[in-house]
Amino acid sequence: MTDERRQIQISVIGSSEPAAEFLPLAREVGRVVAARGAVLICGGLGGMMEAASRGAKENSGVTVGILPDYNATSANPYIDIVIPTGLGHARNVLVVASGDIIVALMGSHGTRAEIAIALKLGKPVIGVGAWDSIPGVKYVRSIEELQKELVPYF
Amino acid sequence: MTDERRQIQISVIGSSEPAAEFLPLAREVGRVVAARGAVLICGGLGGMMEAASRGAKENSGVTVGILPDYNATSANPYIDIVIPTGLGHARNVLVVASGDIIVALMGSHGTRAEIAIALKLGKPVIGVGAWDSIPGVKYVRSIEELQKELVPYF
Amino acid sequence: MTDERRQIQISVIGSSEPAAEFLPLAREVGRVVAARGAVLICGGLGGMMEAASRGAKENSGVTVGILPDYNATSANPYIDIVIPTGLGHARNVLVVASGDIIVALMGSHGTRAEIAIALKLGKPVIGVGAWDSIPGVKYVRSIEELQKELVPYF
Amino acid sequence: MTDERRQIQISVIGSSEPAAEFLPLAREVGRVVAARGAVLICGGLGGMMEAASRGAKENSGVTVGILPDYNATSANPYIDIVIPTGLGHARNVLVVASGDIIVALMGSHGTRAEIAIALKLGKPVIGVGAWDSIPGVKYVRSIEELQKELVPYF
Repeated sequence: MTDERRQIQISVIGSSEPAAEFLPLAREVGRVVAARGAVLICGGLGGMMEAASRGAKENSGVTVGILPDYNATSANPYIDIVIPTGLGHARNVLVVASGDIIVALMGSHGTRAEIAIALKLGKPVIGVGAWDSIPGVKYVRSIEELQKELVPYF
Repeated sequence: MTDERRQIQISVIGSSEPAAEFLPLAREVGRVVAARGAVLICGGLGGMMEAASRGAKENSGVTVGILPDYNATSANPYIDIVIPTGLGHARNVLVVASGDIIVALMGSHGTRAEIAIALKLGKPVIGVGAWDSIPGVKYVRSIEELQKELVPYF
Repeated sequence: MTDERRQIQISVIGSSEPAAEFLPLAREVGRVVAARGAVLICGGLGGMMEAASRGAKENSGVTVGILPDYNATSANPYIDIVIPTGLGHARNVLVVASGDIIVALMGSHGTRAEIAIALKLGKPVIGVGAWDSIPGVKYVRSIEELQKELVPYF
Repeated sequence: MTDERRQIQISVIGSSEPAAEFLPLAREVGRVVAARGAVLICGGLGGMMEAASRGAKENSGVTVGILPDYNATSANPYIDIVIPTGLGHARNVLVVASGDIIVALMGSHGTRAEIAIALKLGKPVIGVGAWDSIPGVKYVRSIEELQKELVPYF
């Protein structure tokens, strides 16, 4: 799936309405993605998506937001390229299909649907934090562990 | 979501490649759906989908298959109405969006994605058998329990 | 694409807000579809879709409405089976992908998009009335001509 | 739809299998898009899409390919960011939904479907060349005219 010509694309998924205490971790994840030179793909909205996008921009990364509606202005302020799909929940499939690697932050039903589809598509899924224990997901406990886990893909 | 004018629609989800021992249960579920006068919605392919469709037809029910490709002939032989979407995995969203109630048989990633989306859409999800323990799903152990669980919706 | 086991499915497409004078023709088309024993597929909303659905029900036909949103109650009152896709305009692809034959009534951009996709999918498209002249569409001028045009497919 | 924070996004649409004589024009269009500092969005495949992407890269532009399948390697070699949708023809809706402006090169059914959906979404559509005459499309005859037509959007 990866391709030498293009930068690696990492999809970061997670809740649009997380408890505030989880946002710094999401921002760190965004920074890591950008530091590796990868493009950050996300659902383009708020919460974990916004925090991760913000982190990526702090490290001069490129961010892509794949939105559920047709309204580009619903994207968070850290999105560079916006894909307003109008597809509703079906847009979740695109978020994971667009990642060479999936990094899953804490989330609920939408995030679980994305993880399941990513596994079905045969994508590597790295879960950050201990918020769930889905078979097939590689869980890491810290940003340092995440960084180590990403090394083989670059 | 239900509507007095129309028949209730029940989406039956589950693996396209289950162990053969699970198929009789799926067929029983299809019979129950048809016996209640509900329309059976499914992904239209083989395995659990085919067994449930077959059961529905044995009780003179109506079956709808929402296919991932554009090829109507990929539908199992017990499908009355075929919706060839060409949407790939995004078609899973439609399978659950089309059900007033979701009955989840044993499955893997695709089925888990459907359950997650159904919960996100606020649909009642009834799991038949003890193959998983997803929060928000009402699990039943037998066809008799499923029948009781369905009563309030009719 | 057609299949001996199943009834032929005919997708009827057209404006949701036509001038009132065009509705009787749409209703006649729905009657013809049902009289042939075909399932009527449409976008499920008002205007031409509702008139065609009504006509089909007057001849005891089966009607399917493929809706752009998740709200089954947005279907017109003559829809038997509702597929609430949440896909926005992408649902138009499904309306034509679900028809063995497409009958195009007067419409605007949405209808033209459906005709183009139907032609791309290699489906036969019959235009009723002289409202447009798209290459690849077989235009007929009357219900009688439509009936003749449908004969070879049954 | 446009947003001061982000670069303008221009969707370039056209045939994947055009006569070779049309490719230089597509390449010129790609150069113009990049020269304006806009992001080039396209369907990511060959023909007009590849020529336009190539032109954009010659002017150091950013290119996005929204693919119909799940296979990122089906993208042409000039795509920077790939969105493998798996949506089949429904991906055409996303190509135009992602553009603030649509530039239509010569194409067939797929391109006509995209134009119709763009008009339905209320997007400005500029047709380059005299290959069609769809109401609602602003046709220009040359790259110079295209450049003039784009000015008010920047």
